[in-house]
Amino acid sequence: MFPENVMMALSEKTPSRICMIVADGLGGIPVNGKTELEAAACPNLDAFAKESVCGRNVPVALGITPGSGPGHLALFGYNPMTYQIGRGVLEALGIGLEMTEFDMAARANFATLKDGLIVDRRAGRIATEENERLVKKLSKKITEIDDVKVQIFPGKEHRFVVMFTGENLGGDLADADPQKEGLPPLECRSTSESASRAARIVNAFITRLNETLADEPVANTALMRGFACLPDIPTMNELYKLKCGAFATYPMYKGLASLVGMDIVDCGATPGSQLETLKKKGAEYDFVYYHYKYTDSRGEDGDFDAKVKAIEDFDKLLPEIASQNFDVVCITADHSTPAKMSAHSWHPCPIAIRAKYEMTDDVEVFSERAFDKGSIGRIWSADIMPMLMANALKLKKFGA
Amino acid sequence: MFPENVMMALSEKTPSRICMIVADGLGGIPVNGKTELEAAACPNLDAFAKESVCGRNVPVALGITPGSGPGHLALFGYNPMTYQIGRGVLEALGIGLEMTEFDMAARANFATLKDGLIVDRRAGRIATEENERLVKKLSKKITEIDDVKVQIFPGKEHRFVVMFTGENLGGDLADADPQKEGLPPLECRSTSESASRAARIVNAFITRLNETLADEPVANTALMRGFACLPDIPTMNELYKLKCGAFATYPMYKGLASLVGMDIVDCGATPGSQLETLKKKGAEYDFVYYHYKYTDSRGEDGDFDAKVKAIEDFDKLLPEIASQNFDVVCITADHSTPAKMSAHSWHPCPIAIRAKYEMTDDVEVFSERAFDKGSIGRIWSADIMPMLMANALKLKKFGA
Repeated sequence: MFPENVMMALSEKTPSRICMIVADGLGGIPVNGKTELEAAACPNLDAFAKESVCGRNVPVALGITPGSGPGHLALFGYNPMTYQIGRGVLEALGIGLEMTEFDMAARANFATLKDGLIVDRRAGRIATEENERLVKKLSKKITEIDDVKVQIFPGKEHRFVVMFTGENLGGDLADADPQKEGLPPLECRSTSESASRAARIVNAFITRLNETLADEPVANTALMRGFACLPDIPTMNELYKLKCGAFATYPMYKGLASLVGMDIVDCGATPGSQLETLKKKGAEYDFVYYHYKYTDSRGEDGDFDAKVKAIEDFDKLLPEIASQNFDVVCITADHSTPAKMSAHSWHPCPIAIRAKYEMTDDVEVFSERAFDKGSIGRIWSADIMPMLMANALKLKKFGA
Repeated sequence: MFPENVMMALSEKTPSRICMIVADGLGGIPVNGKTELEAAACPNLDAFAKESVCGRNVPVALGITPGSGPGHLALFGYNPMTYQIGRGVLEALGIGLEMTEFDMAARANFATLKDGLIVDRRAGRIATEENERLVKKLSKKITEIDDVKVQIFPGKEHRFVVMFTGENLGGDLADADPQKEGLPPLECRSTSESASRAARIVNAFITRLNETLADEPVANTALMRGFACLPDIPTMNELYKLKCGAFATYPMYKGLASLVGMDIVDCGATPGSQLETLKKKGAEYDFVYYHYKYTDSRGEDGDFDAKVKAIEDFDKLLPEIASQNFDVVCITADHSTPAKMSAHSWHPCPIAIRAKYEMTDDVEVFSERAFDKGSIGRIWSADIMPMLMANALKLKKFGA
């Protein structure tokens, strides 16, 4: 992988423009002999493949199934092993919260405590409305602990997010969650010296939460885990000297883009409004990240035919996305989501790069197996950005 | 990449012989659908490909366009990120100077100083003859500073090279060049403790240079940059136990070969004299580095047809080069130089290895796209030497 200091030294600002289209979870595996891409009628993707150099990208490492965080960080050119995004940060980004360097986020579950033991780690999976009522109750009682601001945000069912904002909240905190039922609650412990203050704040928060919920019949405590601050990561502008705009409709992906310093362009909630926004605002950016969600969603549903349909819908959008005056257009995915597995998987993703100075190969079809024969071969996702930068003629020569 | 200490432990001296033929800048990209290699009639290269295992090599990293230095170091089996060759060293090697561990080289420009400001960084791009006159004048006045020997060598137009020879000249020196016109000259500053003596010498040199040139109407000062000593690099003999001979006609490549401890065999200046020299002297070496320059030169010229012709000329030389009793013959390039770009590029190079114990594949044509389907696949340039050593049966088993 390319060292960041070398990338910073070689990258230069030019007028050329790059578009990275991420069809989330695009890759699949066969059901009845065909993958979702092989089963789909996608003439525009096929035409794009013909004009491109093609291959497969491995998001993190062979055999590794990435979450959305590492899958995307790698696409943006970061080593996903170096920059690990804590669970709490991902939860916060996923519900649309913005974070700064002073924030520490944690994921929490409402739970049931009886006779000093956790008897239900999810408080009977209470309804989301009940969750919202409890969060409101807590928010009224707990707003600050020792100069640290505390904010609580409801999620779905028993899940919520706690955001602590103050000085020196970094460091390694162990989960305050015994992980199994029938055990007593766990205090939050700091696993490094620097985190001792944060641990004290969290434990004070849990004490006050228990007091506030003492009269609740079911959700009378909470388990907290994934305490995390933002990773200390250079922005894409620092690395590549790119002005980056994120065109995405889901909070998680906007959050991941904001982590690396992209502008988040308000795209509304539908593929149609997203495309219209690109057409209006895209020209302001020399790097466009365009996220399409439904290939992943239908894969996660385990619905093969629906994923095929999502690919076909994406295929119809492609010509207009790709024709917005870009010098380099790349189509790829953050990870595969085979409908057969109803989950993210480790399978390499398809990647195609269309650019004036790129070789074309003899790939004529946009599919996993066709792309195995493409000229790119097999690459790490984190090597994609240097290739796009090169093709946009934005990298100076290395050495004389 | 293979650790050097392991290579030293595994390599052994045997009578087998390796030839690495570097057709500089050989790879290209299509113009009217064909690359230079695809457009060339090169029956000998095609025949070689049929007898070889083929693939593509990435010189430094995907997307990275290497200079000749890193491109060659990687071919010789060194990590080009670890061993960076300073600009001054490359300039010195490029005009045919030899360097030892006691030398520090710098690139310099004659420039124009007026009222304390640099008003022309290139002194009006003075003629090379004028440059030679000025260098002679300086050389007469400045031969030594504080026990450090100073030698000055003219280049083209306003460019020259200064070589400082003495003890303890290593270290990091910042450029003594404001980079922009309209600014005052910069002193040379050391960016590490150990370089403070070198900085003092350089600044004393600049003072004396300014005194000597004070009466010149245009070239009355100089800007110096790229201060560099030889990298501390193990020789190929140390790494591989090979007796290495460089057969090259251009100073830069002789210089790069001498950096890694090869014998430089005087080959004259033409492809004909180079081939004759190989036939006479080649048998003295168990590793032959054979450099062909014109594929790069014509690519740099941006002349597609001339690069095709250079490939065809190389094709005619190939049978005699490759038949000089070698056990392993490899044809590759230090980087691609597509005529379409008139410059080095990041595109992977073609590589073919012909050896008794190597697989052949079903590649029948010597070209970038044919080689994409070869058995070698995509490798780093620095992985080539271990493959050649293995095929020459010069590497012991690793582990039991």
